[in-house]
Amino acid sequence: MIKTRLCTMLGITHPIIQGGMAWVATPELVAAVSEAGGLGILGGGNAPPDYVRDQIRETRRRTDKPFGVNIPLFTPYLDDVVQVCIEERVAVVATGAGNPAPVVPPLKEAGIVIIPVVGSVALAKRVERMGVDAIVAEGMESGGHIGDVATLPLIPQVVDAVDIPVIAAGGFADGRGLAAALALGAAGIQMGTRFICTTECIAHHNYKEKIVRANDRATITTGHRLGHPVRAIKNPMTRKFQELEREADISEEELIELGTGKLRLAVEQGDMVNGSVMAGQISGLIHDIVPAQELIERIVSEAEAILNQMPSYVIHQE
Amino acid sequence: MIKTRLCTMLGITHPIIQGGMAWVATPELVAAVSEAGGLGILGGGNAPPDYVRDQIRETRRRTDKPFGVNIPLFTPYLDDVVQVCIEERVAVVATGAGNPAPVVPPLKEAGIVIIPVVGSVALAKRVERMGVDAIVAEGMESGGHIGDVATLPLIPQVVDAVDIPVIAAGGFADGRGLAAALALGAAGIQMGTRFICTTECIAHHNYKEKIVRANDRATITTGHRLGHPVRAIKNPMTRKFQELEREADISEEELIELGTGKLRLAVEQGDMVNGSVMAGQISGLIHDIVPAQELIERIVSEAEAILNQMPSYVIHQE
Repeated sequence: MIKTRLCTMLGITHPIIQGGMAWVATPELVAAVSEAGGLGILGGGNAPPDYVRDQIRETRRRTDKPFGVNIPLFTPYLDDVVQVCIEERVAVVATGAGNPAPVVPPLKEAGIVIIPVVGSVALAKRVERMGVDAIVAEGMESGGHIGDVATLPLIPQVVDAVDIPVIAAGGFADGRGLAAALALGAAGIQMGTRFICTTECIAHHNYKEKIVRANDRATITTGHRLGHPVRAIKNPMTRKFQELEREADISEEELIELGTGKLRLAVEQGDMVNGSVMAGQISGLIHDIVPAQELIERIVSEAEAILNQMPSYVIHQE
Repeated sequence: MIKTRLCTMLGITHPIIQGGMAWVATPELVAAVSEAGGLGILGGGNAPPDYVRDQIRETRRRTDKPFGVNIPLFTPYLDDVVQVCIEERVAVVATGAGNPAPVVPPLKEAGIVIIPVVGSVALAKRVERMGVDAIVAEGMESGGHIGDVATLPLIPQVVDAVDIPVIAAGGFADGRGLAAALALGAAGIQMGTRFICTTECIAHHNYKEKIVRANDRATITTGHRLGHPVRAIKNPMTRKFQELEREADISEEELIELGTGKLRLAVEQGDMVNGSVMAGQISGLIHDIVPAQELIERIVSEAEAILNQMPSYVIHQE
């Protein structure tokens, strides 16, 4: 086993967190990850509070281990979803990019562990001052909505800037990545794309296969003009979005409309032509679809072997 | 000391390479890095063969340790510069992005170690088939001309694709990064931005100070329209380039003209307004200007401590 202070804080066996991806991170995947000793996080998305409550209860029926709920700060149901998390005594709340200031006090008071996702040193320092418990520092190689700093330079800069545990995200899929994250000073890793390719994940088989077949350069970012870049696997949808984004006479509203519902289309219908197949640059390292427990055990045992072998690089000079 | 197969291959003490940056990597820096036990690489740039020969001889006057020459594959003097490297019995030739096929056979025949820089798995496999000795796999967080894959996802994918040693580049500045690179399966690291901030580097003090004062989000990429993105620290020059790049009625020739000579202006004149201050996202982790030997010793001893401590994360279950 690999133990860090994150394991103690969250009451989990392995320092591996599953990112709370909208439409993808449902009770099936979340419970499987938490049962396997990691931390599963429900992807709340923009869902209304009753739906989130159902998802929490369904997850609890499947596992008695701790799990979390991701609350995107742009959801129109923000206050109500926070209230549901408090009422249901969720162990962890993760918040997406943005300023979590309004949700921190009620969650803290309820004793819920708060873990915002940040993409820069400035935001990391800001949320630490708000009193959050840990942060996910996510690089721009990750899938979905991204920042602009890559994981490798981001992690040590964030680790130097805050005292709370830093969870590294963006570009992780195996035991080498977990070992590297620990070397950089992180207390664990969060993975998204890799967890899509598990048997328990409800994403359409086409979506999983698209990731398994992807190479290192399979993804592209769109949405820069909207100020919200998104990384997805290149397909007719990303090409169309890119072309329209370059046209001067298309409005931001039209672009937003074009993107709306497209992740769901890919996840639920398996539409690889018109859907948005959000995934990270690590897709090229993902070659199989396995149960979450097998995946976590494989990553931990690979990382253990690497960690144990690291001192052999050090040679004492005669 | 930290030993990898790269040390044996190159006859160096530490698995740390200094990138062959144009205008910056002159005999002063290169000799200091090689004397300190790393591998210094001269930045050949577009210089004519006689100039490269002088630089090689000047470096050799300063050190009898191995060093390299970087040959950009777009230089108009390609064949002649290759010939100079052969005549001067240079230990290592590094090649920049592009297809090194024409230069591999003559350099191989002369027994020179060839290390191309690659930014993708496909190019890594291609250059390995040509018979090169090692590769630098460089992520898009690095300074100057960049690819599109970040270092953390790139390295393990390249390591899995080739048998020759992989040197990780892009996002490295300290011992944590070196330890992380080894965990990912790399045989060493190459650093550019970090080596600019050494006392021996001839870059203008303004340039070094600009890096020291930079934060994690200080850099930006321009030149996407030309198909050759470049990362530099945000300044009036990058803003101007970005604005012009968006204008439909500006030609590619005008954009190229705008960029020409701007790195030299920053390096030699210290012009932080009109110059191109190429630097990586790791700039935010660089806080001082120190001698190359002190820097290398610090990185190695920090990495040694981390490597030795890594097994303590592994707990054997009762």
